[in-house]
Amino acid sequence: MKKLITFIFAFFLCYSVFAQQSLSSRATVKSPEINPDNTVTFRLIAPKAMKVELIGDIFNDPDNGGQGSAQLKEIEGVWTYTTPTPLEPELYFYNFKVDGLKINDPNNVHIIRDVANIFNVFIIGGPRADLYKVNDVPHGTVSRVWYDSPTVGFDRRLTIYTPAGYEQNTKTKYPVFYLMHGAGGDEEAWIALGRTSQILDNLIAQGKAKPMIVVMTNENINQEAAAGESSFGYVQPSMGASSQTKTVPTGIDFIKAFPDIQKFVESNYRTINKKSSRAIGGLSMGGFYTVNVSKENPDTFDYMGVFSAGLRMNDQSKDKDEAQLAIQFSKKPKLYWIGIGKTDFLYSYTKTMRDYFDEQNYPYVYYESEGGHIWRNWRIYLSEFVPLLFK
Amino acid sequence: MKKLITFIFAFFLCYSVFAQQSLSSRATVKSPEINPDNTVTFRLIAPKAMKVELIGDIFNDPDNGGQGSAQLKEIEGVWTYTTPTPLEPELYFYNFKVDGLKINDPNNVHIIRDVANIFNVFIIGGPRADLYKVNDVPHGTVSRVWYDSPTVGFDRRLTIYTPAGYEQNTKTKYPVFYLMHGAGGDEEAWIALGRTSQILDNLIAQGKAKPMIVVMTNENINQEAAAGESSFGYVQPSMGASSQTKTVPTGIDFIKAFPDIQKFVESNYRTINKKSSRAIGGLSMGGFYTVNVSKENPDTFDYMGVFSAGLRMNDQSKDKDEAQLAIQFSKKPKLYWIGIGKTDFLYSYTKTMRDYFDEQNYPYVYYESEGGHIWRNWRIYLSEFVPLLFK
Repeated sequence: MKKLITFIFAFFLCYSVFAQQSLSSRATVKSPEINPDNTVTFRLIAPKAMKVELIGDIFNDPDNGGQGSAQLKEIEGVWTYTTPTPLEPELYFYNFKVDGLKINDPNNVHIIRDVANIFNVFIIGGPRADLYKVNDVPHGTVSRVWYDSPTVGFDRRLTIYTPAGYEQNTKTKYPVFYLMHGAGGDEEAWIALGRTSQILDNLIAQGKAKPMIVVMTNENINQEAAAGESSFGYVQPSMGASSQTKTVPTGIDFIKAFPDIQKFVESNYRTINKKSSRAIGGLSMGGFYTVNVSKENPDTFDYMGVFSAGLRMNDQSKDKDEAQLAIQFSKKPKLYWIGIGKTDFLYSYTKTMRDYFDEQNYPYVYYESEGGHIWRNWRIYLSEFVPLLFK
Repeated sequence: MKKLITFIFAFFLCYSVFAQQSLSSRATVKSPEINPDNTVTFRLIAPKAMKVELIGDIFNDPDNGGQGSAQLKEIEGVWTYTTPTPLEPELYFYNFKVDGLKINDPNNVHIIRDVANIFNVFIIGGPRADLYKVNDVPHGTVSRVWYDSPTVGFDRRLTIYTPAGYEQNTKTKYPVFYLMHGAGGDEEAWIALGRTSQILDNLIAQGKAKPMIVVMTNENINQEAAAGESSFGYVQPSMGASSQTKTVPTGIDFIKAFPDIQKFVESNYRTINKKSSRAIGGLSMGGFYTVNVSKENPDTFDYMGVFSAGLRMNDQSKDKDEAQLAIQFSKKPKLYWIGIGKTDFLYSYTKTMRDYFDEQNYPYVYYESEGGHIWRNWRIYLSEFVPLLFK
């Protein structure tokens, strides 16, 4: 042990001349600081700046998609802002803006990417937000796995959560929940922004959810994987289709290619291969796919979770949609769950679909939250939906 | 398909008022741009800045741990710098410094954390650097897995690479390589900074390395996991011990707790449980542990990789070290590999150990590179060491 201490001491002595340190120029202020009363103080050392703003979703401004901003005040080169009131329990995103340039907080390494934006994050603990924390409970395994997709003609990447005990209980089989991102997202979205592994770990540990496998897909069918994780290298992610992707055969979409994922998962994991042990859910574009993949495969899924999305029931495919839904509901799925925020711009889609379901006497569970088309809501919907599965 | 296009169109139409977009304020310049001749252009929109610098390891300045800087020039608010000469094939780290404040490049989402620093990255392709890329080859699985460590009394996290085909070839057993980080690192270091999964995928696909399991440990024995991944929440990582950790029993160090990892891996993965199918390696502090864990367990490992580290052979434990090494080498390990850079501040440690090995006629393979105690070298050592394993 003493030898190690000598080694480490020599290391620190010499380290300052080396790479990492000389790149750092790191300030020593604490930011963010969560105060005992759950107000939060943000700090930035920037003596030459003229104006420093905080931007993020702590302001919860409904007129601005939940976003807002505040100005930091400077004393001797240190810019500071403390929220005037305690923050509600939540996982929050923020950035600084220094003289108009958006930057990350150099004193907070905890960041999450959403499409091409990188946010700093912090959590104010509390009833629901405690689900988003890593707690001292048994943890599942999170794997980035490649599967062969013969329908598109190349290998693609999944993020797969297996619950605590999966490795040890080698005779146990598990139900599977397929979980899908929105436009601009990829197979990293739910695990990073959605806190899927934390929510599952915590709900399972509390006995509120069954142990299950969660398969997080990439629905951008011409991508192998998230930006930076594919053979197209360090491309910049965007909301639209990127030119730097593979080519898929004409007429192939994610709905047609979905069975490749199911086949891979059921061949390589210990799954219960029954309708009553399969769920599918997703947000926005992933909610759209939830509706469509499940009605294309009416014998496959007993649990559907449609988050912030819906069918308009009025376009070209109206007749097909109606016929498929009739078949799907004739097979009495156990749960069709629809969640949306009151100010979500897709509210009318959901409303149209609910009206149609009501008219047809198709049973569903409806969950309406405050707010709009934001991750805060999708974490809530996931936390509400998962306890209802496989019961 | 048409319906999806309508959906996506409605999405884009409405998206601009929502969260992500309003937080972005994103510039549209391309940065970094790798030009056809492998010069690289960096760009930043910062009309109010007085001075913008590029810092990073592209300058390869040996007097400054490989680091250096250059000033960007401004035209109409856009700051630009193009390297005067093509860059050699490599994975490079960089940041901008705007009026003294270190920031990440807002136009490049590809970042890697090293201790508490977050760097932007890009790759110039070429013979060795092509190993660091995600190529169009079969990919292994990368899992974050928790294991029970009874020696310390709590669960801890590992990053585990299983080679392509591991899931499908359910009868095949694999050799295991235990790979350890340096001071300030954690179980994320080798997978992120070391490009372990890319190097392994590529070497295996080229037939240059055997398919193997790679277990990346966390040697900070009082940590459950990397910062942000443990029950202590979003703590800031540091080079020294953090106060926000668990307590381990007196006298317990990583060397004593190592067998818990081996036991977990050999119980839960399809491993070949023989000395000739086990390797151990690490950088800096991890190299120190490679020497010590392997000589404490002389029947366990046939392959040792000591990167940028060594024993001084002159401290309190000299007699014990010598006795243990004598036993270890009497059992004729297949490979003792030592790699270090010419300007590494631990060069003398390695030299002392090599001199002692020479004196004792202990066989080893020595690899000396340019440069110092930097990730560039550790990626090289990994790429050189892995093809020698399990042959």
